[in-house]
Amino acid sequence: MNGAWWQTRARDADAGRRAQALARQTQLTKPQGALGRLEQLAVNLAGLQGRSQPSMERIWISIFAADHGIAQEGVSAYPQEVTGQMLANFAGGGAAINVLARHLGAELELLNLGLVDESGPLPGVRQLKIAAGTNNFLHAPAMSEVQCAHALLAGREAVLRSSEKDTDLFIGGDMGIGNTSSACALACLLLDMPAVRLVGAGTGMKNGGLQHKTRVIEAALKLHRPHISSPLEALVRVGGLEIAALAGAYMAAAQEGIPVLVDGYICSAAALCATRMNPSIIPWLLYSHRSAEPCHQELLDALDAEPLIALEMRLGEASGAAVAVPLLQSACRLHNEMATFKEAAVSGSLF
Amino acid sequence: MNGAWWQTRARDADAGRRAQALARQTQLTKPQGALGRLEQLAVNLAGLQGRSQPSMERIWISIFAADHGIAQEGVSAYPQEVTGQMLANFAGGGAAINVLARHLGAELELLNLGLVDESGPLPGVRQLKIAAGTNNFLHAPAMSEVQCAHALLAGREAVLRSSEKDTDLFIGGDMGIGNTSSACALACLLLDMPAVRLVGAGTGMKNGGLQHKTRVIEAALKLHRPHISSPLEALVRVGGLEIAALAGAYMAAAQEGIPVLVDGYICSAAALCATRMNPSIIPWLLYSHRSAEPCHQELLDALDAEPLIALEMRLGEASGAAVAVPLLQSACRLHNEMATFKEAAVSGSLF
Repeated sequence: MNGAWWQTRARDADAGRRAQALARQTQLTKPQGALGRLEQLAVNLAGLQGRSQPSMERIWISIFAADHGIAQEGVSAYPQEVTGQMLANFAGGGAAINVLARHLGAELELLNLGLVDESGPLPGVRQLKIAAGTNNFLHAPAMSEVQCAHALLAGREAVLRSSEKDTDLFIGGDMGIGNTSSACALACLLLDMPAVRLVGAGTGMKNGGLQHKTRVIEAALKLHRPHISSPLEALVRVGGLEIAALAGAYMAAAQEGIPVLVDGYICSAAALCATRMNPSIIPWLLYSHRSAEPCHQELLDALDAEPLIALEMRLGEASGAAVAVPLLQSACRLHNEMATFKEAAVSGSLF
Repeated sequence: MNGAWWQTRARDADAGRRAQALARQTQLTKPQGALGRLEQLAVNLAGLQGRSQPSMERIWISIFAADHGIAQEGVSAYPQEVTGQMLANFAGGGAAINVLARHLGAELELLNLGLVDESGPLPGVRQLKIAAGTNNFLHAPAMSEVQCAHALLAGREAVLRSSEKDTDLFIGGDMGIGNTSSACALACLLLDMPAVRLVGAGTGMKNGGLQHKTRVIEAALKLHRPHISSPLEALVRVGGLEIAALAGAYMAAAQEGIPVLVDGYICSAAALCATRMNPSIIPWLLYSHRSAEPCHQELLDALDAEPLIALEMRLGEASGAAVAVPLLQSACRLHNEMATFKEAAVSGSLF
């Protein structure tokens, strides 16, 4: 797919604004470096947003929901209809991400990219149904190239909508029973690792189930590995529609100049795929949390990512990212609102 | 000091409310445990606050400022007048804690417990000047028992004021040039460790300075160790007025039934002292962050504390605790506002 939109280079960070922000940090009434990573975050965001005083007030959250054919192999502790039930719960305002988005004053957008469930439209849910879930990738590619391109584009269009609202930060979230298997298989192909290194319990698999899940993914990898000549091919063969949308959103956000806060395990696999499809986006991705899936650390290492929090969360639906947003807000507010030594008449040269 | 107020047992957590909160957690529309430590925090806070739905909206922050005689030994990179200048900066609203408190809608109280600087009263600062800074504990006890009792009481009175405002969380902060030396010496006496295990760079000491600081503290420990028969005695001999006030506040908060969020290194030393003076308070202390001082981890280990964040902050003035508050707020809001399986018609029994 030469010439596809996602191959366009990401926007460059603004070196001038970044330098201004760095200079401001040395003038604030605190010893240099005393706010630790909050200082680096503020300076980094200033460069990305092209403002010497970065802002973290307008947050956009898109939740991409889709079903997974691999769920037929019993790799999840939950039946597939839970994907649709949870999407309905998001639409009703009762899920974790609703509570968090409400308190952040964030824009929360819900997208159905392909649920198996045919229960009809839900209020407030964008219906972009690309397929009735993916194919079971134990036996066939999860999707066609055209379906994958549609899903990538769905992510981009979410970012373009957020861009119209002058968003300061883009967050993507996932919902899809079976998607830890898809994310795991995708990461295995991209990192050339065996399933056992990257498989996790997902949403509550017990020991025997975990072994079964590992065997299923390993068998699928055997089928697909000989055919993988690009990150896109890996996404087509073992990815999910919501994972492709997340990857598309991350690439588009970097092109549009909107910083991204990556959620947990599923989103990290999408980020890995996106950074392999277009490495110029790397500086635009911030990482929110290390999830309770032990194998998430492998993904974070591969991404050279240092998440902000590690609270043993493993819910998905952008919840880890939403919980971490106030840390970015504190970084920006401290940077923008603290007095300088000159303003406060504190012995600044001494600090 | 038998019969002193701080020996009174802490309030017991409400086991019934805690059990109700635990039951509610199993009914929320998420897999059990998927919110990780946020679930445990909400349940824990429910027990402490005696409400099945805990609240984290009314935050109280008291900043205790005092000078340290040990600063005469050149153990800080900054001159002693910075204590007063920073207190003036707090009063003027320009410091990190002002920015954070403002965005939390927190009540911020400033207390002068004993600055060397005689620049007169500051608007908005409570003047409780117990001494013109402590004595240099390299040569003599830092304070008298009476001064220490006054400082402990100053902490308690701050808590009683916060209690009148029905506060959901008490945070104490410190300001005092030289106070990492005092905190280090106090922790060494309480944990029977050599200075080299617990000494840190403080606010910017370089290598040679760090060795000098270690030697000064070790010499002071040699002077005082033979006389230490109680945690109170350690506090009197090497503590600071603001450290004593923090210890008093922590004990009083636990007695009043107000959860505490402990800030960084200085506050952890105060917490260690307080828990040794009255071990019944232990359940009331939550820990906000691991600071950039490598030796802070030793203190946290001794306290069996798992802080919420580790962002390499080392500013003091309650800033780490204030940055961590939104994580507690998220825990409470998710607990209180998420839909139950019944409300959302999600296959709850399956989760």
